[in-house]
Amino acid sequence: MPQDSNAPRKIILDCDPGHDDAVAMILAHGNPKIELLAVTTVAGNQTLDKVTANALAVGTIAGITGIPFAAGCARPLVREVETAGEVHGDSGMDGPAQPESSIELDERHAVDVIIDLVMGHEPGEITLVPTGALTNIALAARKEPRIVERVREVVLMGGGYHTGNWSAVAEFNIKIDPEAAHIVFNEAWPVVMVGLDLTHQALATTEVVERIEKIGTGPSTFVRELMDFFAQAYRDHQGFDAPPVHDPCAVAYVIDPDVVRTVKAPVSVELRGELTLGMTVTDFRAPASADCNTSVAVDLDHEGFWNLVVDALERIGEVTLRK
Amino acid sequence: MPQDSNAPRKIILDCDPGHDDAVAMILAHGNPKIELLAVTTVAGNQTLDKVTANALAVGTIAGITGIPFAAGCARPLVREVETAGEVHGDSGMDGPAQPESSIELDERHAVDVIIDLVMGHEPGEITLVPTGALTNIALAARKEPRIVERVREVVLMGGGYHTGNWSAVAEFNIKIDPEAAHIVFNEAWPVVMVGLDLTHQALATTEVVERIEKIGTGPSTFVRELMDFFAQAYRDHQGFDAPPVHDPCAVAYVIDPDVVRTVKAPVSVELRGELTLGMTVTDFRAPASADCNTSVAVDLDHEGFWNLVVDALERIGEVTLRK
Amino acid sequence: MPQDSNAPRKIILDCDPGHDDAVAMILAHGNPKIELLAVTTVAGNQTLDKVTANALAVGTIAGITGIPFAAGCARPLVREVETAGEVHGDSGMDGPAQPESSIELDERHAVDVIIDLVMGHEPGEITLVPTGALTNIALAARKEPRIVERVREVVLMGGGYHTGNWSAVAEFNIKIDPEAAHIVFNEAWPVVMVGLDLTHQALATTEVVERIEKIGTGPSTFVRELMDFFAQAYRDHQGFDAPPVHDPCAVAYVIDPDVVRTVKAPVSVELRGELTLGMTVTDFRAPASADCNTSVAVDLDHEGFWNLVVDALERIGEVTLRK
Amino acid sequence: MPQDSNAPRKIILDCDPGHDDAVAMILAHGNPKIELLAVTTVAGNQTLDKVTANALAVGTIAGITGIPFAAGCARPLVREVETAGEVHGDSGMDGPAQPESSIELDERHAVDVIIDLVMGHEPGEITLVPTGALTNIALAARKEPRIVERVREVVLMGGGYHTGNWSAVAEFNIKIDPEAAHIVFNEAWPVVMVGLDLTHQALATTEVVERIEKIGTGPSTFVRELMDFFAQAYRDHQGFDAPPVHDPCAVAYVIDPDVVRTVKAPVSVELRGELTLGMTVTDFRAPASADCNTSVAVDLDHEGFWNLVVDALERIGEVTLRK
Repeated sequence: MPQDSNAPRKIILDCDPGHDDAVAMILAHGNPKIELLAVTTVAGNQTLDKVTANALAVGTIAGITGIPFAAGCARPLVREVETAGEVHGDSGMDGPAQPESSIELDERHAVDVIIDLVMGHEPGEITLVPTGALTNIALAARKEPRIVERVREVVLMGGGYHTGNWSAVAEFNIKIDPEAAHIVFNEAWPVVMVGLDLTHQALATTEVVERIEKIGTGPSTFVRELMDFFAQAYRDHQGFDAPPVHDPCAVAYVIDPDVVRTVKAPVSVELRGELTLGMTVTDFRAPASADCNTSVAVDLDHEGFWNLVVDALERIGEVTLRK
Repeated sequence: MPQDSNAPRKIILDCDPGHDDAVAMILAHGNPKIELLAVTTVAGNQTLDKVTANALAVGTIAGITGIPFAAGCARPLVREVETAGEVHGDSGMDGPAQPESSIELDERHAVDVIIDLVMGHEPGEITLVPTGALTNIALAARKEPRIVERVREVVLMGGGYHTGNWSAVAEFNIKIDPEAAHIVFNEAWPVVMVGLDLTHQALATTEVVERIEKIGTGPSTFVRELMDFFAQAYRDHQGFDAPPVHDPCAVAYVIDPDVVRTVKAPVSVELRGELTLGMTVTDFRAPASADCNTSVAVDLDHEGFWNLVVDALERIGEVTLRK
Repeated sequence: MPQDSNAPRKIILDCDPGHDDAVAMILAHGNPKIELLAVTTVAGNQTLDKVTANALAVGTIAGITGIPFAAGCARPLVREVETAGEVHGDSGMDGPAQPESSIELDERHAVDVIIDLVMGHEPGEITLVPTGALTNIALAARKEPRIVERVREVVLMGGGYHTGNWSAVAEFNIKIDPEAAHIVFNEAWPVVMVGLDLTHQALATTEVVERIEKIGTGPSTFVRELMDFFAQAYRDHQGFDAPPVHDPCAVAYVIDPDVVRTVKAPVSVELRGELTLGMTVTDFRAPASADCNTSVAVDLDHEGFWNLVVDALERIGEVTLRK
Repeated sequence: MPQDSNAPRKIILDCDPGHDDAVAMILAHGNPKIELLAVTTVAGNQTLDKVTANALAVGTIAGITGIPFAAGCARPLVREVETAGEVHGDSGMDGPAQPESSIELDERHAVDVIIDLVMGHEPGEITLVPTGALTNIALAARKEPRIVERVREVVLMGGGYHTGNWSAVAEFNIKIDPEAAHIVFNEAWPVVMVGLDLTHQALATTEVVERIEKIGTGPSTFVRELMDFFAQAYRDHQGFDAPPVHDPCAVAYVIDPDVVRTVKAPVSVELRGELTLGMTVTDFRAPASADCNTSVAVDLDHEGFWNLVVDALERIGEVTLRK
């Protein structure tokens, strides 16, 4: 696939905003190395209605225009809906006041938007960046199997090789829809797992929050208010001093793999375990074979990562909210 | 739902022809109490390509015109493809010669045809009749959850409460995609399981085959030739004297519940068992509660059933194959 | 193993009395074709303390002397204790008044009594008749693997091929210790499963109870009172008109295989299923192979069975309770 | 339990020698802070016959006299036998020549030796140190539940919280008998898991082997020859530069908890997972509660550990082999 290596990376962001999903949207929108083709939503941090409304709100606040926003699956493939109100509040994005959205939702289902975009672009052009449950991505791969060979890679926030948050050894995005995750990890496309081992390094420390605050725009204030709520939730429920801002790490990897260092290793999703359901089982016993299509993120350049976020906010600057 | 009780029952036949699927198509087409709205296909008895070609061939032979034929999922939701070449041959419908098809495949995915039809009709109008793996039906329910309350009932061939064929206690259609089956059985629509306990009563005995042969039309000859191959396969691989013709039993139930007697009982699909994966676990310990939405077929009126098949072939009569 | 075919069958009864266990003890004691070598107990219908006290009480009432009574495992191999107070009452044998026991408990563990007896007799002499959870038998087979080839057969009450009572498809004795059952069914000894399909034919009808009552001895009165309580429990909790008297069916099979007809079929115990844990999965798809070591009981001669029980009570006659 | 804190710790070593088990025996025998009460064996690294012969050989070489050596279970509780010939060779202790054993095997089963010793000592006196599969310990706890409250603690080599060797996430001793491990981890006694995370720090480096060689006695030569074979096996099959000498780490913890640092954390054994069977799932999400009875070993003082081994060999000195 002969591509201009300086051309921005085309991505579809499939998310469930969610505080950190909002930051992922903003980073994808503000960074010049990313061309955001669509924002699609999936039930997860909150119900589909709420996370879709949040996505439109973030799009409005950050001035994301000219691309489709589409709603996807309202529940996991096989299991019942499970949301994370403790972490993200009743709205799924508690904290800042949310503006009236000026963006209209695409009429198509997220799954069809993903399929249409991937099939409408050249092979190797589009990267999928899911930061929620993998229901939409899995359904798209089953409905139109040809997307698998056309997608450049799937860079997902989810899982963890040594760290869990929704059980001792499983992470929320994977555990709430393990069958979807199983599908995504088992397809032939390259999968980069940006999991908790990495994202627990992406702490929004006091210094980070101060840098964001100093920018002084509407979007930066919005992010700071998100971080305030998120910090409190992580302090109260998971004992963190500063909150780990998971989802933009996946976007950061697409922008600059030096910021999010990965290693190749086979990853599979446990579907039957009683204590390990949804664990992203990673095998480090031997170096990965040449045909291994999965990598896991291991080291974050903390300063480089936050530089990217601050830079994106500065580039977005002030946004005038339309009525 | 105020409906003319004499009006024919509108059904979508979701199938993987398959010898007995072919008979199901013919029964649905030839019986005046059924209005066949679409034929959709799914991988199962053979690969999607083969069963789709077979569906078009049966439609051509039986003169089924004016309705969409659409291809669906090429593989189960979570698991690898598994087909039944031993039972249905390499083509999935070995035995009779197959004509060039004169029917053009709909461009839409089966899942979208199902959704479009159900959402485009009144609530309670459409009955889904799946006679293969439940992949398409499950995907449709996840992509457009509103179909669940609009579908009149799901009358499926699959499973069994005391009988298995793909393991000691599981049936092929359910076992090859147990997650899809789990989805279908757990939705709120009424589900009638026409399983092996019933269909092993639907034997194409010598007498039955002679009745079909006597009709003397192209379609009846086609069915007789299907039965010849099917009989041999069941004799060789499963020790049956006469082959059980599973799929038309589901159609027969829609035509006349006196031919296929059912009882209400809770049914769930086992997803974790080592020996019981895909078992349709049915609880007969107590009478089913009023809100139980699943029934299982228990008794077949063998003569009444084959009368329906013979009658359908007689009504279809001779069909001129178009070039 | 050249044995006198008229010699009584030597059995060890491993039980958890339990109303029907009591009848099994009485049948084994009173029938001349059985030589009862020991009674061992295991937690199940009630806690180990209670079922052991009940075994001693039944032994006292029925005049069983000169053999060891030994207590075994107080809990299942892997899982937590689960008892059946709803069926057997708080004492595990509610109903009749219980006499002071005149029998002293053996100091050895039931597992060692079983091992000592089997290793101390000729190969092929001893039949194990477990009518509770299979914990003791499994532990004995693991502690002294050589018993497996020396035991003549294991005739157990438990499981079922089409019938469950502790879940839709699992029976109490197997489900409360499925790992022990798995061990017993997988060893090389012959195993006869006298399961619910059979024992639900062994109903203590009014006519049966009247026959027992007419005998007019202490032991017969005791049995009648057991049946009264048991009938009420089965009426209230499982909707039976007359109670199925499970455990003596296993003893009856040892006495006369014409009374309990069996067929060979492979049986395995499901250990992982969510809905099927502890199911005794039986494969009827093809005739059992020559080396199949498991059989399942299918048909009971109801009259022949109760004749055996009545006959045993008559032979026992009146028993003088020692102080 | 008022005990002289300077009194040696009484332990029963339950093992499957095994190269590293041999070193564990030698460390336990040679260190003055340990009083070795018995050596019991269990199938694992090799069959029961072989590891028992090896235990007797090590006892002979190291001059361990006056205590019972007893053979235990020949196979895991529920699953089939699995051995580790690749790691330990055909004999289970390949490498050095083995002398005729001068020790006679105790006639009792290992399970009864463990029970007799624990019940014959004061509560809190005896520590169990299993360095193989946990079959014997589990069976002892089930056969005589009162040992649980009398055992001081169970310090076992096995498992791992982030490291596997018999699958991506499970360790050999636990994976070959996960049900036994589940029993041991779920009893109320304190359990210290000295797992792979710790033992992969206990490398027998060239420097270590040279220190052992320099001692120049029969036992030290034996250990050096064991290490030579072990090094080769780990180089060939698991890519290690120097072999991790697992089992003596458990003994070292009993001698000096400063050498093997532990932290409290809840540990459970996965019994159902497809990819995670036998994983010792450890929950580090929050500080362990006060009633948590499990700890995991995290940091090894490498020099301190090998000092203990060298010191034990020096104290044992030369041993005259009896004929």
